[in-house]
Amino acid sequence: MSLTAADIENAAARLHGHSVRTPLLRHPDLDARCDARIWLKPECLQRSGSFKFRGAFNALSRLSPTQQQRGVLAWSSGNHAQGIAAAAALLGIKATIVMPADAPQIKLMNTRALGAEVVCYDRYRESREAIGTNLAEQSGATIIAPYDNYDVMAGQGTCGLEIVQQLQSPPELAGQSAADATLDSLLICCGGGGLSAGITTAFAHYSPDTQLYAVEPEHYNDHARSLRSGRRESNPTELPPSICDALLAPAPGRLTFPINQTHLAGVLTVSDDMVKEAMRYAFRVLKLVVEPGGAVALAALLSQQVDVRDQRVGVIISGGNVDPELFANIISKY
Amino acid sequence: MSLTAADIENAAARLHGHSVRTPLLRHPDLDARCDARIWLKPECLQRSGSFKFRGAFNALSRLSPTQQQRGVLAWSSGNHAQGIAAAAALLGIKATIVMPADAPQIKLMNTRALGAEVVCYDRYRESREAIGTNLAEQSGATIIAPYDNYDVMAGQGTCGLEIVQQLQSPPELAGQSAADATLDSLLICCGGGGLSAGITTAFAHYSPDTQLYAVEPEHYNDHARSLRSGRRESNPTELPPSICDALLAPAPGRLTFPINQTHLAGVLTVSDDMVKEAMRYAFRVLKLVVEPGGAVALAALLSQQVDVRDQRVGVIISGGNVDPELFANIISKY
Repeated sequence: MSLTAADIENAAARLHGHSVRTPLLRHPDLDARCDARIWLKPECLQRSGSFKFRGAFNALSRLSPTQQQRGVLAWSSGNHAQGIAAAAALLGIKATIVMPADAPQIKLMNTRALGAEVVCYDRYRESREAIGTNLAEQSGATIIAPYDNYDVMAGQGTCGLEIVQQLQSPPELAGQSAADATLDSLLICCGGGGLSAGITTAFAHYSPDTQLYAVEPEHYNDHARSLRSGRRESNPTELPPSICDALLAPAPGRLTFPINQTHLAGVLTVSDDMVKEAMRYAFRVLKLVVEPGGAVALAALLSQQVDVRDQRVGVIISGGNVDPELFANIISKY
Repeated sequence: MSLTAADIENAAARLHGHSVRTPLLRHPDLDARCDARIWLKPECLQRSGSFKFRGAFNALSRLSPTQQQRGVLAWSSGNHAQGIAAAAALLGIKATIVMPADAPQIKLMNTRALGAEVVCYDRYRESREAIGTNLAEQSGATIIAPYDNYDVMAGQGTCGLEIVQQLQSPPELAGQSAADATLDSLLICCGGGGLSAGITTAFAHYSPDTQLYAVEPEHYNDHARSLRSGRRESNPTELPPSICDALLAPAPGRLTFPINQTHLAGVLTVSDDMVKEAMRYAFRVLKLVVEPGGAVALAALLSQQVDVRDQRVGVIISGGNVDPELFANIISKY
């Protein structure tokens, strides 16, 4: 395993002053509803609207001057795209992003607005890996994989490190006591597994007693099946669509899976309806804008996919990049 | 003047463990857009969805046991209602709230859900003060005014005290340095003036060099006119409607005005269009759900009603209780 707590500490030092130290939020209504003490880590408040900036900035900072000069290339349904574009703009690196033509408009717009060149492809007929690899060969750009990259994972892990640190600094939070300095369990949104790999590595080191759960969308439960079988299981190619555009990776990552396999206590699954309900709850009570893929952990909590009664529970909200039309449609259905 | 920094410190002690210590948020996009360093205090993340809980809880805590037993009565377009209802529920006090029948549905629903008895009135034909006073006389309930009450103002002031404290605790915020420990200016949403009175009292004491601005909706600029004339000016009775339902008080408060008059550097005004644009920005970039009245200070910042270039600027977001239909409608109009 090549991801350590020290890698995450180093990534945190690189990110300092560039990423947003997102707050740990509490809400009395959420505590009452769950009969538990809940801490939310809202990465929707992160630069570029999701945790992806953390990994992107760390990975790009680690490139050699020659690599930085040649530029970077990535493929992404949108959040990694925006993370890479934002990090590249800060570091003065040219970025090319291969994105599905039907990605949420807000993600396409933001990626372009951040100065990246966007190449669209048809995700039902074309391979983004083939298009991207070909473009990178022509330009000499370095490909930054969305999760199967240790520097990316270390960057995402800073989200977990911050939670540990924030729990240990009581004055920041209302009603915090010494008994709240650790979490009993933590729920993490999971697509390719990069965020889980980073966060679970941080927690395994600094908070080893916390039970760590990944949360996936229904049907796209490759981590759940892989954890059971002990090897990387792919999702079938013909699946019902999911609202969680950010979490539709084909299989657990080659590099992320061994890490997640070691640290995860389990994998939870939520339906699109549970996700929509969580987004409505976030709108109505928490006053946060959460995208579908960013709401799966909250959805698992609210729909009681795991028993957390009387526990201290952390919940990652991983992103907030959702098209206004979709958001409007979801919040209007009470 | 009967509101002191000590009153606010005492209110903070009473609120500890009951109110949410809302974070101070930074966002790189906002800084870049304003060419300044901006700190947001998002009271939409407060219990009951607005700062009103702070004043309500402080005022209700100060009632005698006999008064608590007889219950409380308030009139409100919605946020004071929810604040009173939430505080009363926590303290085991019966609450009756007189609300306009056309208040946002989410505010009516939430107030009832918090256990308060809601009495609706027609705000074009009936006087809420008359209805409320009459009901209070019958029941012996104590009337809790939404802003003309020193205990309410002291509670709202804790929002300002927290900003001062949070600016002085660097590790909480990314990129914070010693130079950021004070603000050059602060923009405060203003209706009856209770929030401004509390916050400006805290700042006048702990951060006297900060320029303090109240922000009002266009047409309902009673504070702007009153500050100019030196006495409490009322809004005309026939005004074009405003989207800012939370900020339509008829005139500056009798008790709040002398305080605001002493401390405010000026009053800014924003149009409904500026407010909608700020709500869209909060949705799209900040990922916060902000109600119209809660967005006026952000709207003043984004529409450059005051020159803040190169300054350190605080912006209060005072609430997030907005009906999903209205919110959906506003964010869909790009």
